[in-house]
Amino acid sequence: MSLTPHHDGSALYVPEQEPALGDTVDVFVRVPAGTDVRQVHVRTTGDGEPRFAEAVVDRRDGDEVWWRAPVEVRNPVSNYRFLLTGARGTRWLTAAGTVDHDVPDNGDFKLVSYAPPPAWARDAVIYQIFPDRFARSAAADARAVPDWAVPCDWDTPVVGRGPQTPYQFYGGDLDGITERLDHLDRLGVNTVYLTPFFPARSNHRYDAASFDAVDPLLGGDAALARLAEAVHARGWRLLGDITSNHTGDAHRWFTAAASDGSAPERELYYFDEATGDYESWNGVRSLPKLNWGSAELRRRFATDPDSLLRRWLRPPYALDGWRVDVANMTGRRGADAHTHEVARLLRSVVAQTRADGLLLAEHGHDHTGDLDRDGWHGTMNYVGFTDPVWSWLRHGDEPLPHFLGTPTGVRRRDAPAVLATMDAYRSLVSWRSYTHSWQLLGSHDSARIRTVVGDAARQEVAAGLLATMPGTPVVFAGDELGLTGANGESSRTPMPWHRPERWDASTFAAYRALLALRRGEPALRHGGLRRVYADADTLVFLRESTAGGVLVLARRAAGAPVRLPGLPPAENLYGGAPALRPDPTGAVTLPADGPTFQVWRF
Amino acid sequence: MSLTPHHDGSALYVPEQEPALGDTVDVFVRVPAGTDVRQVHVRTTGDGEPRFAEAVVDRRDGDEVWWRAPVEVRNPVSNYRFLLTGARGTRWLTAAGTVDHDVPDNGDFKLVSYAPPPAWARDAVIYQIFPDRFARSAAADARAVPDWAVPCDWDTPVVGRGPQTPYQFYGGDLDGITERLDHLDRLGVNTVYLTPFFPARSNHRYDAASFDAVDPLLGGDAALARLAEAVHARGWRLLGDITSNHTGDAHRWFTAAASDGSAPERELYYFDEATGDYESWNGVRSLPKLNWGSAELRRRFATDPDSLLRRWLRPPYALDGWRVDVANMTGRRGADAHTHEVARLLRSVVAQTRADGLLLAEHGHDHTGDLDRDGWHGTMNYVGFTDPVWSWLRHGDEPLPHFLGTPTGVRRRDAPAVLATMDAYRSLVSWRSYTHSWQLLGSHDSARIRTVVGDAARQEVAAGLLATMPGTPVVFAGDELGLTGANGESSRTPMPWHRPERWDASTFAAYRALLALRRGEPALRHGGLRRVYADADTLVFLRESTAGGVLVLARRAAGAPVRLPGLPPAENLYGGAPALRPDPTGAVTLPADGPTFQVWRF
Repeated sequence: MSLTPHHDGSALYVPEQEPALGDTVDVFVRVPAGTDVRQVHVRTTGDGEPRFAEAVVDRRDGDEVWWRAPVEVRNPVSNYRFLLTGARGTRWLTAAGTVDHDVPDNGDFKLVSYAPPPAWARDAVIYQIFPDRFARSAAADARAVPDWAVPCDWDTPVVGRGPQTPYQFYGGDLDGITERLDHLDRLGVNTVYLTPFFPARSNHRYDAASFDAVDPLLGGDAALARLAEAVHARGWRLLGDITSNHTGDAHRWFTAAASDGSAPERELYYFDEATGDYESWNGVRSLPKLNWGSAELRRRFATDPDSLLRRWLRPPYALDGWRVDVANMTGRRGADAHTHEVARLLRSVVAQTRADGLLLAEHGHDHTGDLDRDGWHGTMNYVGFTDPVWSWLRHGDEPLPHFLGTPTGVRRRDAPAVLATMDAYRSLVSWRSYTHSWQLLGSHDSARIRTVVGDAARQEVAAGLLATMPGTPVVFAGDELGLTGANGESSRTPMPWHRPERWDASTFAAYRALLALRRGEPALRHGGLRRVYADADTLVFLRESTAGGVLVLARRAAGAPVRLPGLPPAENLYGGAPALRPDPTGAVTLPADGPTFQVWRF
Repeated sequence: MSLTPHHDGSALYVPEQEPALGDTVDVFVRVPAGTDVRQVHVRTTGDGEPRFAEAVVDRRDGDEVWWRAPVEVRNPVSNYRFLLTGARGTRWLTAAGTVDHDVPDNGDFKLVSYAPPPAWARDAVIYQIFPDRFARSAAADARAVPDWAVPCDWDTPVVGRGPQTPYQFYGGDLDGITERLDHLDRLGVNTVYLTPFFPARSNHRYDAASFDAVDPLLGGDAALARLAEAVHARGWRLLGDITSNHTGDAHRWFTAAASDGSAPERELYYFDEATGDYESWNGVRSLPKLNWGSAELRRRFATDPDSLLRRWLRPPYALDGWRVDVANMTGRRGADAHTHEVARLLRSVVAQTRADGLLLAEHGHDHTGDLDRDGWHGTMNYVGFTDPVWSWLRHGDEPLPHFLGTPTGVRRRDAPAVLATMDAYRSLVSWRSYTHSWQLLGSHDSARIRTVVGDAARQEVAAGLLATMPGTPVVFAGDELGLTGANGESSRTPMPWHRPERWDASTFAAYRALLALRRGEPALRHGGLRRVYADADTLVFLRESTAGGVLVLARRAAGAPVRLPGLPPAENLYGGAPALRPDPTGAVTLPADGPTFQVWRF
């Protein structure tokens, strides 16, 4: 065990979790016994100028010394780092770790004085539903199949890549979801995230033809109201999915804009007036790109009293927030760089409409520059969680083709490389943005975790990390049953309600137990994160809060037992390993088998 | 020798050095023989979305393969990185180096489509003069000593810290500089940078009492015109120093603002209307902070046809640009974050006034977030050059106290740590911003390099790096004579013109030869930078351009000889070592003595 001086943004180290501009707050560093630290300074860079303040010893706790230092919240985002001085020299402690040479400020710890995300989001466990594929109510049978659709029976295989892919129509609807909420309850989630429910000309509905109504194929507005009521009656939350980067080409904004160069809708898009051509999402002509330089777009989308952004946040739907599709491209085009301004605008409108609304950005690559700006509360953390977990747990030596566009796919990597990636992204954002970002093992845009890792044992390790790492866990519907899928489209598998023989009951049980663990342990929801040990196949970390701590062991394969000195006795909470009992030398020994996932509580 | 796949922003790898928005330009990667690379992709993130394009083999050159790939300049700053695929897996090649795991985009290579810095700046070698301490003309004797001043004889010791420090008045003036330009010519510089010449109430004049006239103590406007004429007559450039963060409290803007709450000047500063108090630079009350939220400030400072920013750029002064004092704090205060907007404004006004004007920002810590934004052309690269060079060459084990405010000072570190720091800062900005930033061994705000490193031999190594690394070299007047100084204030030593026995002739000769080398070798001014070898005491690198290449060896101490395979024969250009001749195995051996600084040309 090599515990090092530690600080992160959790309440153990930053008791004031909602600092206001102008406050001076205390921050704490813990220094394990035997570490070469005689003096600690905190460095801030308020108003662009470095300043140092000396830390004092706040207390000694067992073998550890806790240092305390003041940090002025001088700017909306206030950076700080620690300078540790010992007999053998000085080191910096930043969110990127301890380093013996000078490094730039981007990895500094960050205090954010913008309004925090809604309190409920700290404890959210999210279940993602792709409505066409989740469940059909009886009413679905009576609906006419639309002209664009290729009607499919619930047992029809999903075509992952082909001309039919966006048109295979299974007819899941919102009442179908409402009827199946007991399944979510058994699983242990408390927030439902729906991919788009607006009318469109595809099964994924990211090509909205309107923002004014729920797709009648899903049951219409009334079905959404029924679902919202049922979700809220359970004390849960409901999130929608909004396309801020583009509409569908069947949207009346676009048809008006395309048919009349002088239409007020013209400025909502990017038309080349010479050719009549228009900008679209990655060149897909059915997805014309919105122009956020347009005041009219800002009005219709956001600021108007009855804007689409506001309307669905109000009763009887009362969505608890929005996931923002393609947030990474929203407002970006050539010299246009409206993204941060748009994010702030959308957030302020959401907050005006309902104070506890969530605004969460899709981002498939480096999101770090877009957070901590009073805009998105968090992001889909594919790069800092999904991709590293996949890399670590990937079965075999063959790369998984096509991870979010990477031509060489996802290859197996060892834990130290994977942790380096996680740390690199984590260190660039505030603890608040990190913990409020969505931690997912896959989605409707990716392969399914079962296909990535190959078997139930490694999926259990993945689900364990999902439930015990600091981000907001998101389960893509069907993962809990062990469903498979090699890419985003083929992962949009209908839920096999009528085929119980296809359910992997042990995987469901693991997810259920792990999510219960997260709900039951405050440290797993609000605690800090300290690494204890890593080798190629093994990862050991602590989650700790004022309410206690847990030790987590994740192994992708069997190996040598790991001996850790200096830990107190601990009871096993998950995984079935024996309790941890220090031997006469004071060390505990963790199990050597694998794949395995184990959690102990001190 | 461990040459690895390489790319940087120099013309060898990016032939189009001034890409325009919308262009697609070719970029090149060189891959040494024997490297595990079978396929190369370039990844861009235009409009916020990653895209991959496959590179092709452009040519084979000796043992190397040069790959070529297209990059679309889709945004004003366009990121790119390379994905190298080999038999043993994939790696990313970014400006931060080659890495085997996923990393954020901040270290990506960057193409910048904003207007480039003036062409002359690429070849500038700058000489920094602190006017009170450089040279007195005969006219100086006739001037009355001002009331704030403590008059000093040219031989009076400088007080580095004390109540007299800002008031010791030596009476150097601009005609004194004009008379001494032959010294600069012998040294081999081509650009003169003057710290402020406006009237003030201190010897450093950063507390401007006016921006409308040259301090009469320096000879007034006419003396500046004479100096400018003499500098320009030699084909050189002249830079001023402007305080955009604050004025002095004797400035008429401030006295008007302080005496009358309804004065138009009130909004130029940050007054607390309740207490009458005002914001000042780091709490120094004689330096009231300017409020860039004020439209009136923007007008007076910049946009007015006769603004201070414009006026001195015009004949008869025709300054070639400005160094911007405390640019790091300019426009920053609490929730105010005007910095980038102000930088853009100042740059546009400079460019309107003279197309080849330079705008260079002072920054004493992490400047990387403030560059590549169509504002500052570059910065004073203390963190990415000065501090690492000091750390590497620091004599003895005692830290040098107080480097730009760090309480534990500068300690000796080995070359790998120092290179990691250099790389960390370099990788966050474009090649253009990196090479146009000022590379300095010290300034009027720091200790002198001779005091840091302790002797002439190590100073020569430092000066060697100054002359051969990619940034714009700046010599602080007196460093070339081996003058000493333990902090910024005590470094403001009068030039010992009348004490030739105090000149270190060998140090002057080394500076002169090294700067001549830089002037003579295009690769040293415009070439790329490839690392070849490093150990604790040794640093070997290549500078290469289409016009040829040089190999640089810097050693802070003697050690084992370094054998490098794969290099062609090369003649010694500096340092006196033998020519490099490959032995029968194809390797060359570099000298083992030290400290030493050697340069060879292929």
